[in-house]
This record gives sequence, structure tokens and C-alpha cells, in this order.
Amino acid sequence: MSHKPLPGFRDFYPDQFAERAHIFDTWRRVVRRYAFQEYDGPPLEPLELYTQKSGEEIVTQLYNFVDKGDRPVAMRPEMTPTFARMVGTKAQTLRKPVRWFSLPQLFRYERTQKGRLREHFQLNVDIVGEADVLADAELVSVAIEIMRALGLTHTDVRARVSDRRLLNGLLEHLGIAEDTWPAVYAVLDKLERQPREVSAEKLAEAGVDTQTAEVILGFATLDFATMQARYGEAPAVKPHAERFAQYLAHCDALGVGAWMQFDLTIVRGLAYYTGIVFELFDNVGEFRAICGGGRYDTLLKSLGGTDLPALGFGMGDVVLGELLRARGLMQSAAVPLQYWVAEAPDAPAAPAGALRTASALRTTGCVVEYALRAQKLDKQLEAGRKAGAGAFVIVDPSSTDAPWRVRRAGHDDQTFTTLEALVAWASSHSGSHA
Amino acid sequence: MSHKPLPGFRDFYPDQFAERAHIFDTWRRVVRRYAFQEYDGPPLEPLELYTQKSGEEIVTQLYNFVDKGDRPVAMRPEMTPTFARMVGTKAQTLRKPVRWFSLPQLFRYERTQKGRLREHFQLNVDIVGEADVLADAELVSVAIEIMRALGLTHTDVRARVSDRRLLNGLLEHLGIAEDTWPAVYAVLDKLERQPREVSAEKLAEAGVDTQTAEVILGFATLDFATMQARYGEAPAVKPHAERFAQYLAHCDALGVGAWMQFDLTIVRGLAYYTGIVFELFDNVGEFRAICGGGRYDTLLKSLGGTDLPALGFGMGDVVLGELLRARGLMQSAAVPLQYWVAEAPDAPAAPAGALRTASALRTTGCVVEYALRAQKLDKQLEAGRKAGAGAFVIVDPSSTDAPWRVRRAGHDDQTFTTLEALVAWASSHSGSHA
Repeated sequence: MSHKPLPGFRDFYPDQFAERAHIFDTWRRVVRRYAFQEYDGPPLEPLELYTQKSGEEIVTQLYNFVDKGDRPVAMRPEMTPTFARMVGTKAQTLRKPVRWFSLPQLFRYERTQKGRLREHFQLNVDIVGEADVLADAELVSVAIEIMRALGLTHTDVRARVSDRRLLNGLLEHLGIAEDTWPAVYAVLDKLERQPREVSAEKLAEAGVDTQTAEVILGFATLDFATMQARYGEAPAVKPHAERFAQYLAHCDALGVGAWMQFDLTIVRGLAYYTGIVFELFDNVGEFRAICGGGRYDTLLKSLGGTDLPALGFGMGDVVLGELLRARGLMQSAAVPLQYWVAEAPDAPAAPAGALRTASALRTTGCVVEYALRAQKLDKQLEAGRKAGAGAFVIVDPSSTDAPWRVRRAGHDDQTFTTLEALVAWASSHSGSHA
Repeated sequence: MSHKPLPGFRDFYPDQFAERAHIFDTWRRVVRRYAFQEYDGPPLEPLELYTQKSGEEIVTQLYNFVDKGDRPVAMRPEMTPTFARMVGTKAQTLRKPVRWFSLPQLFRYERTQKGRLREHFQLNVDIVGEADVLADAELVSVAIEIMRALGLTHTDVRARVSDRRLLNGLLEHLGIAEDTWPAVYAVLDKLERQPREVSAEKLAEAGVDTQTAEVILGFATLDFATMQARYGEAPAVKPHAERFAQYLAHCDALGVGAWMQFDLTIVRGLAYYTGIVFELFDNVGEFRAICGGGRYDTLLKSLGGTDLPALGFGMGDVVLGELLRARGLMQSAAVPLQYWVAEAPDAPAAPAGALRTASALRTTGCVVEYALRAQKLDKQLEAGRKAGAGAFVIVDPSSTDAPWRVRRAGHDDQTFTTLEALVAWASSHSGSHA
């Protein structure tokens, strides 16, 4: 028998599942407050859904095959193409802006490196049908409020934000020809990770003069106020700088201003994004991006769908989980065992009293377990302790004064003469998962 | 662009997702009360995990392929092999009985028939490490309590229950040779669906004499009391009849006795089950089985794992959803929009008041939306009505006496002079999803 999952795939034992559930629960709780609605699509899609957006070269990274009906198919490597298809199909009837989210598991055949997985879960949050910069502020604030709900602060995480239109305006203002922009983007994208000389060399190769290259290399540390003071009145820059200032003001009003960091080196997918783009990073710089997204106003149309402005982000469970564990903030959504029901006297062959009691407590929403075989009372209680029970209910149908007894650490025993009285006490007393 | 999902795969738009979430939420809520813990495994596994259990013939039904590392793999058609692998790997350290559940999506390349899907979600509930019949009663009661939590009663659904050991005992008592049992099982399995003459013929072909064949054909309507009266004292039958009687008594004590129906035609997978087996059916007989499971004491060992008794069931979302819709019991877990925040006066370019208000309300757990662009007040309110808002918060920073006004249908407007007062009112008043 195969005793292992495939390389890059995870088994979620209950302890690990409870951590994953903590992340999922937090994602859903926050995103729902923003009135986003959850959707889902198939984990297997026609291959062309992905090649159409990303070109044939994506196939090397896919779990793709030909199904038994001779259809080229692929396990989904990202959610956006499915999202675009679904929105496109019902674009006429959906209320705008569309505010949807999903928690798909995604699959990529990555070269195995240390800690690189071939599947992960990714929160996808998207808005369709709104071109205003207020939608951009709403979107990034969802991502940041998730950080906050997980216990992270703006000293742990920052949102590095740029705007493709603003960057284009700056390059235009600097007199760089449009066909050189992709080379400049490539340099900016790697600015943090490659030596300054290499970046300067690449800019020179692209035909950027030394003085302009110095300016571009300075983008790495250019804050928004300085950018505005230097270039804010240039005609190619002005409308974009103003829009970006408005964006930051909206983020302030939404309570996330302190997390924002203007950063022209945030480039992201060239063929994809058209406006404000952002990535969330830990401030120590220890981990890859926690989250990335932005505005992609032309994508839906280019995929053959309707021409609607759109923006969205993806946030994976893997980097986020690593960060939470590193900061001591990982929590478990495990459901605690509230009651262990035992039956006295010893080892009843038909513990009907325990079964009726367990059933009644469960009906009120309590989490209840009992021994699934006849055992002596002390064995039953020992099993309950091992199961981590919060309290014990000892049922003794032969007792006339106290057929039900509740035992909790640090409390005196409490007795009940009827099952109804016990259930009323338990449902008012101990909370429930009903 | 591909405008459709693959045949047999579903898109879950928010309305459909909310129905699926109603089923998932109910599954989790009930199963957790029974102190089962959730786990998950990979949706892609080594192919041999499935061929080892089910033989090479299962491959015709699988989404299988060779991955880019030359590994034969398959999208999971069922959860049990993954479950067996996971339990097997940690069998020594896991507390027994293991009580786990999972909600995997499963994949089978079925011939397309009307309404037959190629993916579905299936609740899997399993107990490992307990041979006592009390575990069998616990298991079936989980399945039945899910029906009850979904609004179904024992007049809608019944649990048809048999015991492989009891049936074997009966066949032995009737003098049928063990090598003929599989043929008899096959007849019993189809008894309901094929003409009586065909069943009789098949029994004759298998070498069963006419008189014995009549007895077997009568199993279709044999209730437990009659079975006990006729065969309960036969040595081959007695221990199994007694165990089954105990099982029914446990089910009574667990409050699910009224749902149980003894039915020797419930056979299920021959190579798999070893004891009590059950299926849940709608009483009208309109749908396929809602749920099926039973005891499979030898499976874990046969898969190369540890020798532990085990039992479990699977319950899919498709038949269950059809039944709930047919009975008018399908509900939606959609999260209602509680507040729509609008800013006065008309069309503020920087609606900071609305944004601060939305952010504060969301922090308390309220579900809040607002217009993502500058609009006249009546346009904002109209958008909120279309979004189905439960209430409106109108923010007017220029007003000194009532900067915050809450408007709800059927109520007088309520005004607040501070944001704190509004938030306090909202969090005490309107519930939250925090």
C-alpha cells in the first residue's frame, strides 16, 4: 500500500485540519462582513481555459491530461479563468458590482523545492463592474482586515502598493519609449532581489540613459509624498497621482492607512493588471508574498467575456500559515469535547441511560461522547479523561435521588433528578455548537 | 473561451453555493455533536491506492493519468483508501476509537446519464478501533440525526438495515453451501428491482432448490420479529440475531428506533463489508440511496494497514439535495446584508464618513456594503434596496444634531450623534456574524 501522499500534497490530520479551519473560518468571517458572496467552480476544467489566458507555456506547470471522453483537461492552477467564465455567462443578470469570493484548492506541478507544495488553498476575492478607485480601497482593506482578524498588526505586515497607470505616466514623463517599458518593469520587479549593478546594466541594455536609470533605480525607496512633490504636476503623471492620493485617503477612512506602503517595485503579471496592484508582505521579509492582487480591467473582455472593469486578489493558506506559526499566532478551530457520559453501575450491557442522555444533550447542540462498549465505570471515566472531556455526566438509573450527576474539575458535583433538568442546565450553562 | 464547465461538473453560483453550504453546515453541526473530528486528504492520489482495494477494473471509472514525474495518479473516487492510509500511518498513536469525518469532493468518469454527475461531495464518517455493536448504533444514529436536522422525519426517510453475519447464518441454517452465497447475495441485492421470476431463475441456476428459493425470495418482506421467531434459536443464527436485537435496542435508546427497518436485501459491496450494513432511502422510493455504510472489520488490514475493526458511511450531496428540494426543505445559508451605508449630501467625492461608518460596523461583525463610487443619495439608497439591505445607515457629516440616521422598513428613523453610539446600538441590536 502507498503509505504516503504524492510529493507536494498534504494530509490534514485533525490537528492540522483545525489550523486550516482557523484560517478558512477567519477568511469567511471577514469577507462576509464586506458582503462578498461565496461561489465555487469545478476543480477540473477544459485545458484551453488556462492556455487561452496564459499561453501554451503554462502547460508545463499543469496537472493536465486527456479524459476518457478525449477532452484535454487540467486541474485548476488558479481560479480567475473559472471566475471569468462564470461571471461572463451571467453578466447580464448579475447585480453590479459583483462581489464574490471563493476558497478553491489549486494545483501546480512545480519543481520540488524545500517547502514548495503542489497544491494549496487560495482565498479569491473579486469585484466586477466598478472602475472607481473606491473599489480598489475596498479590496485592499478586505485583505488587511483579514490580517488584523488573525492577530497581525501593521508592524507585522505591510501592503506594498503601486499603480500601473501611475508608473506608466512616470516612465512617459521620463521620456522612456513605450516599447522599453516591459524591460523597465522586469528590472523593477527584481530590484529588491538582484544587485544594483545588474539592474543598472539591464536598464543600459534596454537603452535607458545613465541619468534616467539612476532615477528608476531610486524608485525602490521613493515614497508617495516625494513622488508627488517631484512629478505630481507633470501632465503624464498628474491624473494618476491624484487618483492614487484619493485611494490612500479612502484607505485611511477605512482604517487601514497605517498598513499602506507606496512601492513602485510592485509590478505583478504584465499582461494581466491595468491599475492599482498590491502585495502583502511580512515586515521582516522572511516569507514570500502573503497575498497579491489588483485591477485587471481588460481581462474579462480578452477572455471573450463581457467588457467589465474588475479587480481581485488571491491569498494562499501556505505562506499565511507559516507566518502565523512563526509569530505564535496560529490557532486551532478544533471543537472541544464538552461532555463525556458514563453509566453506572459498572459495565452495563445495555447502557440505555447513557445513550438517552447523550442523545438529549446532543439535541441541544452539546458535543458529547461515551464509551462504545460495556466498561467498568472507572474505565469509562478514564476514557473520557483521555478524550479531553470538559465535564462528565454520570448516569445511574438505579439511583433515586441523583440519577444524573455532573462532575467538573474545580467544581462540586451537581445532581439532577430528571433528564430534562440536566438538559436545561447544560444548554443554559455550557454554550453549544447548535 | 469555454463557456461551460466539463460535462458532469457543476458551477456553484452564490445561490447554489448557499444551498450546498446549508447541507455542509448541517453535516458539520450534527457530526461535531457526536465528537467526530474533521480531516482531509489530497484530491489526487497514487493510482494504486484505488486499484489495490477495488482491482484494475475500477480504472475505467477513474480520472487517472500519468503526472509529469511519471507517476500513475487518480483523482479520488472515494475517501476510504485515503482514510485507511492516514489511520494506518498513525495507528499506534491515535486515541481509539478514532472518530473522524471528512467532506471530500469525489470524481468518477460515469457514463453520462440524465442527472448523473461526475463529481459530488460526500460526507464520510468513520469509527476505527471498536468491534462492539454499540459503535454500529452510534454510526447509524449520526446519519439519521442529520436527516432530522435537515427537517426530514421517519415518515420521509427510513434506514434499511441488515447484517452480513446474520444473513450468512441464515443461509448456513438453510443449508446453502458457502460458495453459493455470492450468487444469493447478488439476487438479494436486485430483489427489489428485478421481476420475481428472474430472481427465482437465478437462484435455481445457482443450485438453490425451489423450496429454499421461496424462503430467500421471502427475505424481501421479512421483518426482524418474524425472523427471530422463525430462526432465532438456530445455532448458526442465534448469536447474530441477539447482537442485532441489541443493536436495535441501542438505536431506540439513541432516539432513532422509529427510523429503522430490518431489510435483508441490503447487501452493499461484497468484498468490503463484514457486519451490519445500512442504507438510507426516501420512503416514496423516488430517489437512489441517500446514504450507505456499515462495518468493514477486515479492510484496513487487507490494505496493508493495521488490523483494527472499523465502520463508516458515506452521504453524498446530490441525492440529498434532490430530496430536500422535492420535499420543500432546501434552505439557503446565504448571509444577509445587514446595513447599507450611504453618505449625504449628494455624491461626495470622498465619502469618508460612510467609509469610517462601514469599517466600524464591520469590526463589530456586521455585514455592510456601500456604493463603490460617488452617487446622489437617492441613487445610493436605490442600490442598497437592490442589494437587499436589511437597514440603511445615512451618514451626514454636515449635520450637527443627527450625523447618523438608521432607516428600517416598518420603524421610525433612529438617529445617533456619535459613531460609537451607532456601533453600540448595532452590535446589541442586530446580531452579527462575528
